[in-house]
Amino acid sequence: MIGSNRQVILVSRPEGIPQASHFALSDANIPDLKDGQFLVRNHYLSVEPAMRGWVNAAANYSQPVAIGAVMRAMAAGEVVSSKHADYAVGDRVIGWFGWQEYAVSDGSSIVRKIAEIDLPISLSLGILGINGVTAYLALMDIGQPKPGDTVVVSTAAGSVGSAVGQLAKLAGARTVGIAGGPDKVSLCRAAFGYDVALDYKSEAPLLPALQSACPGGANVYFDNTAGAISDAVVNCLAVNARVVICGTASVPVWEPPPLGPRLERAILTKRLMVQGFVLFDHMHRYIDVVARLAGLVREGRLGYREEILDGIESCPDAIAGLYRGENMGKRLIKLA
Amino acid sequence: MIGSNRQVILVSRPEGIPQASHFALSDANIPDLKDGQFLVRNHYLSVEPAMRGWVNAAANYSQPVAIGAVMRAMAAGEVVSSKHADYAVGDRVIGWFGWQEYAVSDGSSIVRKIAEIDLPISLSLGILGINGVTAYLALMDIGQPKPGDTVVVSTAAGSVGSAVGQLAKLAGARTVGIAGGPDKVSLCRAAFGYDVALDYKSEAPLLPALQSACPGGANVYFDNTAGAISDAVVNCLAVNARVVICGTASVPVWEPPPLGPRLERAILTKRLMVQGFVLFDHMHRYIDVVARLAGLVREGRLGYREEILDGIESCPDAIAGLYRGENMGKRLIKLA
Repeated sequence: MIGSNRQVILVSRPEGIPQASHFALSDANIPDLKDGQFLVRNHYLSVEPAMRGWVNAAANYSQPVAIGAVMRAMAAGEVVSSKHADYAVGDRVIGWFGWQEYAVSDGSSIVRKIAEIDLPISLSLGILGINGVTAYLALMDIGQPKPGDTVVVSTAAGSVGSAVGQLAKLAGARTVGIAGGPDKVSLCRAAFGYDVALDYKSEAPLLPALQSACPGGANVYFDNTAGAISDAVVNCLAVNARVVICGTASVPVWEPPPLGPRLERAILTKRLMVQGFVLFDHMHRYIDVVARLAGLVREGRLGYREEILDGIESCPDAIAGLYRGENMGKRLIKLA
Repeated sequence: MIGSNRQVILVSRPEGIPQASHFALSDANIPDLKDGQFLVRNHYLSVEPAMRGWVNAAANYSQPVAIGAVMRAMAAGEVVSSKHADYAVGDRVIGWFGWQEYAVSDGSSIVRKIAEIDLPISLSLGILGINGVTAYLALMDIGQPKPGDTVVVSTAAGSVGSAVGQLAKLAGARTVGIAGGPDKVSLCRAAFGYDVALDYKSEAPLLPALQSACPGGANVYFDNTAGAISDAVVNCLAVNARVVICGTASVPVWEPPPLGPRLERAILTKRLMVQGFVLFDHMHRYIDVVARLAGLVREGRLGYREEILDGIESCPDAIAGLYRGENMGKRLIKLA
C-alpha cells in the first residue's frame, strides 16, 4: 500500500524519566502486505508509566526498546486491509502496534480482538486494557481484600489506582486513596468512591493523616509509587497485611537503588506479605478479566476517566507529563 | 515447698542487644502449689536471638518483658510435684518457664509434653523446638523449595539456618549457606550438607561470590540477618523468588529503621514474594511438625549442633554472645 505512516522513534536512551527530547517524529512508507499479514490503522495510542522501564537500559521484565526503533506501545485500531484468514477488514483489535499511525501484523502482536463493540474502543487501552486487568489481578491475587479490610492505594486517581479503589469497594473493603493535589483528591471522592482521600502534597507529614484514616491499620496496600509515600504507609499496616508492588512512579532513577528505611523488621514483626506484580505473567487470563470488567462498566459499577491528547505530535512529551502528574485519567493519544 | 529458686531478672531495658548488665541473678522461694498447679524443675534453659525483641520496648509481636520480671524463655524440664490431674511427677515438659531453676505452672505455660523420650531432652529446645519448627514451617510455607531450586540461607550454621539448609536439601534443592568465619563455614559443609558455604567476613564484597554460587539466580532466600548480607542476596535472586524474613540478627537497632537500598523495584521487576514469619502464629501445628522432625533425627537425616553452657550464671551474657557470633550451635544453659 502506498501511503505515509508517521511514527515516534526512540532516538536516545534516557536515564530515569523519558523526556520529549528522547523521541523524534519520523515518516515511513506503509509496507505492502505479504500473505498472512494485515494492516491496522491505529485509532488510539496508549501512554503508560511503565514505558519508563521499557526504554531504560536497567534490568527489567522486558528487553529495552532499541535506539532507532518505533516506541513500544499498546494501541487500539481497526483492520483496514488483510491477507490473514483470521483478521477481516473492519475487525477492531488491540495489540503491541507501537507509537505509529499504521502497523503491519501477522497476528503475533495482537492482544485480542475487541469483543465489546457497544463500548468505546478507547476503553480497551484503559479500564478494559492493561490498567484495568492489572488492577483486578494484582488486587485479587495478592491484595486479597476481604469485607471489613482497609485498603490503601497510592496514585489513587490514576488509571490503575482508580480501578483498584473501586474493585476494593466492590469486595467490601474500606478504601483510602493517596493522590497529588486537590483536583485528584476530589476525583477520588466524587468519581471513585474512596472513603478517605489524602493529598500527599498538602498533608506533610503524611503519617498522622494516614493513621487517622486507618484507625485499625491498613490490611492491604496497593503501591504504585514506592518512596516516601510507601514509607508512611508501612507505618500504618496491620498485622498480616498484604502489599502489592505494582509501580514505582515516585522514584525516577533506580540504578543504583536510592536509600530508604529498611523494611525487614516491619515485614517480620507484622508478618507482612510483599509481592511484585507484572501483568505480562498473566496474559492467559486477560480476556476473561476484560469480560468481567466490561460487565461492571455496563452496569455502571466501575467508572473511569480518560484524558485524550490529539495527534501523534503529542506522543514525545506524554510520558514525562505522566510523571509530572498532570494527567487526570488514562492518558491516550487520538489519531483517527 | 521450701527451697531456693534462682532466677535471672531483667533489671533495665536495653536499646538494641541485651547485655549482661541488663540482667541480675536473684533468689526466690519456691512457692507452695495450689490445686491445679504443678512444679517443673528446669533441666535446660533456652537462649534465642529473638530475646532481643522480647526485651526491647519497640513495637514487636509480643509484649515486652517487664522490668523486674523473670526473663521470658523456653525451658525443658521435669515435673517434680503436682496438684494437676494432667501432669504427673516424672513427666517431661517444655514451656515458657523463664530463666529460673523452678517454675510453677497451671498448664497455660506448657508448649507440650515431650513424647520422644528416646531422644535427649535438650533437643526439645532446638531442632525439636522453636528453632526446628520455625525452620520447617517458614521454609515450607513461604519458601516452598522445589527440586532444582537454589536456596540461600543466612546464619546458615545457626540453629534455625542449619535446619533450613538440611530441609531444603531433603526437598531436592541446591543449598548455599552464608555464615561468619571459617569454623562455621566448615560446619556448613561438613555437618549440614550445604553445596556451597560462603564466609561473609572474608568474602568482601559478598556479591561476586554469591553470583558464582547461584549461576541461575536464587529461587529462595531464607533470611535471618537483614542488612548488608540481604542487600547482596537480593541482587542474586531469580524471577519469582521467595524471600522468608525470619530474623534480623545483623541490625542491632531498629528504632528508627536504618537506611538501606530500596527494594521496591527489585520486588516489582523480579516479581518477588517477601514474607515475614513468626512462629507464635502457628503453634497449633507445632506438635505435628516436631513428630516429623523427630523422625528425621532418628533416621540420621537431620543433624544439629548444641552448645551447652553450664549453670544459671551463664544466662546474663548469653544473648549478647549470640550476637557476637561466638556460638557454634543451639545455645542452651544446663541446670540439672
